[in-house]
This record gives sequence, structure tokens and C-alpha cells, in this order.
Amino acid sequence: MAFYQEIHQQPEVLQRIIDKQWNPIQTIARIIRQKDIRYVFLAARGSSDNAGLYAKYLLGSVNRLPIALAAPSLFSIYETAPRLRDCLVVGISQSGKSPDIVQVIQEGRNQGQLTVAISNDITSPLAVSADHVIDLSAGEEKAVAASKTYTAQLMVIALLSAALSGEEDKLAEIQRLPELASRVLQLDESIQHQSERYAYMEQCVVLGRGYNYSSAYEWALKLKELCYVTAEPYSSADFQHGPIALLEHQFPILAVMPEGKVYADMLTHVREMKQRQHIELVVLSNMEEALQLGHTALRLPVDVPEWLSPIVSIIPAQLFCYHLTKAKGFDPDTPRGLRKVTETW
Amino acid sequence: MAFYQEIHQQPEVLQRIIDKQWNPIQTIARIIRQKDIRYVFLAARGSSDNAGLYAKYLLGSVNRLPIALAAPSLFSIYETAPRLRDCLVVGISQSGKSPDIVQVIQEGRNQGQLTVAISNDITSPLAVSADHVIDLSAGEEKAVAASKTYTAQLMVIALLSAALSGEEDKLAEIQRLPELASRVLQLDESIQHQSERYAYMEQCVVLGRGYNYSSAYEWALKLKELCYVTAEPYSSADFQHGPIALLEHQFPILAVMPEGKVYADMLTHVREMKQRQHIELVVLSNMEEALQLGHTALRLPVDVPEWLSPIVSIIPAQLFCYHLTKAKGFDPDTPRGLRKVTETW
Repeated sequence: MAFYQEIHQQPEVLQRIIDKQWNPIQTIARIIRQKDIRYVFLAARGSSDNAGLYAKYLLGSVNRLPIALAAPSLFSIYETAPRLRDCLVVGISQSGKSPDIVQVIQEGRNQGQLTVAISNDITSPLAVSADHVIDLSAGEEKAVAASKTYTAQLMVIALLSAALSGEEDKLAEIQRLPELASRVLQLDESIQHQSERYAYMEQCVVLGRGYNYSSAYEWALKLKELCYVTAEPYSSADFQHGPIALLEHQFPILAVMPEGKVYADMLTHVREMKQRQHIELVVLSNMEEALQLGHTALRLPVDVPEWLSPIVSIIPAQLFCYHLTKAKGFDPDTPRGLRKVTETW
Repeated sequence: MAFYQEIHQQPEVLQRIIDKQWNPIQTIARIIRQKDIRYVFLAARGSSDNAGLYAKYLLGSVNRLPIALAAPSLFSIYETAPRLRDCLVVGISQSGKSPDIVQVIQEGRNQGQLTVAISNDITSPLAVSADHVIDLSAGEEKAVAASKTYTAQLMVIALLSAALSGEEDKLAEIQRLPELASRVLQLDESIQHQSERYAYMEQCVVLGRGYNYSSAYEWALKLKELCYVTAEPYSSADFQHGPIALLEHQFPILAVMPEGKVYADMLTHVREMKQRQHIELVVLSNMEEALQLGHTALRLPVDVPEWLSPIVSIIPAQLFCYHLTKAKGFDPDTPRGLRKVTETW
């Protein structure tokens, strides 16, 4: 029951982060602003890497900071790390224990760059290697598959973006998130029924774009690690550059498409696919027109600002994966072949 | 027959690029070196994006340049492009016509950054938007699925890396590539027989790491667009952070693992998977130990330097996809739902 319980702990975790971390994050943001950095160099793996995708879009558009996602093997195996100048080095890891991510932070520090770790364990090797640590404050995560630590990472990134922007109304928007998360958790029972239909699904594509590109990746990762579904995440634009050829009758497309700037583009694209092929469509959205296109509709609250929507939209996806895992007869708490801490070099 | 013919044109295209483009690339490299850039900001989609992954590892390790892969929608849809300072902006596109990639170059130029386009059409919107153009010199590519323009992109990136490094022996290594490509094309007939076994394969994972992370992505893309196989590319490290749970009896793993720094790590990982689960293993390598692990072995020439191996190793993968497409009864020249030029915004 750990995974299920941790999904349901998310409103309280989000609230705790606002209460405890807003002040330290503002301090770190002040230090970053003094540095006049050119770009952010970010290292992460697994769910944390998906949180990094959110950072790429959010810090890229709101704070206009270019983000380079690190190739950790250049640090750990090739031992010829890129030369880092005028950048902020960020490492994201729930456990803070994966040696390759730790090495990126250490190298950043050796090269005299400002380093920040985002971790759920402030005594971990990652945390102690960095100049500054942001505590995910999520409490111990017992399930192997991440849920609350993923939304906690998104929350920390949203707070950091708000603090860097200096716009006070952003915090007010963030403060609504715990309540929005609670509301979306009420979909639990209906999602249990809806997921039944996919008990024999073996593969699918998950589409998202812009801020919710991260949601597509995280949903797909959960489908792989818990439901053993070969789920491939795609930006709806990249999908048109080749993989769209996969589509055949009833091929399942899961689309994350809440209101926002990329919505119109995704709607056109999804509608076209539906007309050309009889695809099976699962829609995660707060837009009526999109929801009606889906054979299965996962409804988000209408009043979620686009820039924060990934924090809310992943929750129905987590519930979907939990119930689908059960429908398929697997155990959500002990995915085969996985341990909680993955150490890669 | 276009795709098949274009695969076989690769040695001659590689030779043409060395002959015609080495001088212009040296000139561009001199201009780049004068700029004292902090990082490279790179925009591409589809196969070109996979070439971008090669650039990320090669320029990252040999030239120690950090690479940020652009999120084109920040430019085209969100209209809040990141602030670019002290960077080199590179756009890679065979056609040079995808509007979102063109916009990244235009914005880079508006922000006063040095811009370089890599394209097979030097009159394309991408090419005319950039300060400098590198001509892929591949001749018209008629097949919808890229082959010779992909290896041409890798070749241009290798030449650029060599020119930036100023190390003359690198060119000598590059000059061996046309002959190595010819040698690997001789596998054509044996790969035709080997691919038969996978006529009913519906999904697989393609593993690669370091320089050949790009090969895993490109092989998987070809499997999707031509063979309609749900093929998911993974770094062998990322694969352990969750997706490894997918593995079940006879799940097909295609592993690109030529000699080099990441080889030992991949060998350990692949061997472990084979012991734990009876996976089906297709190995693309020049190392005897790895080849013997595979049910199917695609053998590369032994004397390929690691940094250039992606240019050679993708060729057997292309042949594999061509023959598998035929074995599955599809047409390699007209993949469903695709056009040669994909315009995304």
C-alpha cells in the first residue's frame, strides 16, 4: 500500500514544502541572481530527470534561463567533463546517492561553479557535495516507484522559479496547489473503473508538450516500471517527425493536454490522428473539447495555471498506473528488478 | 528502393564531405574559437536530433563544450525564448524547413549570438537564417526515412570537433571512415537472414551509452518509422532507473556496444540482465565477448575508434531495419503517415 498511500500524501507534502522551504529557496535565489549566470547545467536520472524537463521549460520560459541537461557519463566514465563557466550546476536526486549525479556536482564545485542539490536526504552524498541544498521535505518514500518525491521536486522548481522572478503573485498561485491536488485525488474511484479497460494494453505512446512534456515522461516511466507496459513518451511535435508511423487501429495514445499555450497545437494534432486512424485516446485535460475526444477522459480542475499544471496533472496519471497495475495482477509496491536506490556510474 | 540505395551510398557521401567540407569547416571552427563561447545551444528534431546527441557527447568530451538541447516550443509557441549569451547556436535539419528549428536560429541571431546551420539544402530557410552554413553534401534524399543524411550529419559534427580541437591526427582517423562504411555494408546479406527472426517482434528496447547513445536513438527511430515496432531507446544507466522492470522472458534488447570507455559498464549490465531474465539479445559490437552473448550478432570492424563509432555502427542497424521492414511485409520507401519534410511549430 506504500505507493497508494504516498500518492495520497501529496497535498500535505506540497503544503509542507511551501511552509518550510520558501524562505531558504528565496535565499538561494538571491545568491543565484548575484552570480549573473549564463545557463543552468542540470544532472538527474529517472523521475528526477523528468522533473529536470519541467525545469528546462519553466526556467527557460519564465526566467529565460537556458538549461543544459548533463550527460553524466562524461563525468563518471569518460572523465573529460565539459568546461563549466558562468553557470549554475543543479543535481536532483531523491536519495542523493547515485554516484554519477554526485560526480557532476563535485566537478561543478571543483570548477568553481555555484552548485545546488535538490534531495529528500540532506545528509546524502549529493547534498553534502553541493554549496546549497533544498530539502524535498517529502518524508521517507517507501514505495520503489516515486510519487510524492516527484511532485515535491516539481514544487521546489516552481518555488525557485517564482523566487528568481521576484514576482509576488506567483507565490499566491503556488499556494493553491495543495488544494488542487486534494481535489484531483477525488478522481481515485472513477480512475479505478476507467483503468480496467487497459488491463491487456501492452504498449502505448504518451504525448505532452511544453511544461507537460515532463508529465508525458513521468507517466510513461510509471507505466513501464509498475505496469510493464512499453510506454513511450513524446512531444507531440517530435512524434510527427517519424514515430507517428506506429499508429494502427486502436493504438493507445495517452495525451496530457491541459489549457495553455501548447493546447491548440496538441488539439489539432490529436484530432488529426483520430481522423486518420482509429486510435484509442486517453485524454488528461481540463478542456471540454479535448476530454470529449477521448474514449477515456481524466478530468483536471479548470483553474490550474499552465505553468503549475504538471504538479496537478501527474496525480491522475499516478492513480491510473496504480489501478492499472492492480488490474493487471501485479504488485505496485515491488516492481520486478528494481531497488529504491539505483546506483549508476 | 530509395532507402536501400541511399544506405549503400553512404561511403561515397562520407568521402564527399571530407573532400568538400573540411576547408569550410576549419574556417567556421576558427571563427567559433575566436568567440570564447561558454556553451552550445542546439536545435533539431527527429534523426537530426539524434545527430545532436552525438554532438552532445563528442563536443562535450573532446572539445569540453557543454551542450544545451533547445526546447523549440519555447521559441515558437511560448514566445519567451531563453536569454542566450556567450553561446554558439546550431540548427541541424536535413530539409532546413521545419519552422520551429528556423525560429531558434533566427532568435539566436537576433540576440547577437553566432549561428551555424547544418543542412542538406543551403538555400533552405534554416540555411539562409544562419551566419554560417555547413552543406551536408549528401545529394537528394528520396526515401522518407533518413539514412545518408544522418551519417552525413554525424560526419560534419566529427569534422567540426576535429577542427575545433586543432589535433591533426583526428583527420587521419576520419579519413578511414568511407572504407570502414564500405566494409560494414558487406554485412547486407547476412543481416537479411538475421532479421527474419524478428518478423513478429512488436516491441523492444535499444540500449547505447556515451557516443553511441545517438545510435540507440536512431536505430529505435528507424524501427518505429519503418517497421512499426515500439522501440524505446535508453542509455543503459537510465534503463536501470525504472524501465528495467519491463523485462520478461524473451523481451528483445538491442544493444549497441562497440569497444570504448562505456563498453565494460554495458557488458556487465547486459550480462546481468541475461542472467536474471532470459532476454533476447541482439548485439551490435566489435568485441568478441559481447557478440557471443547475443542470439543475433551484428559485427563491426575491430579497428573503429570509439569517438567515430556511431558513424559506422548505425549502418548495420539501418540494414537490419530495411530487411526487417521487408520481412514484415511493409514498404521501406513509404512509411505510413509520414512525409519527407515535417513542419512543426
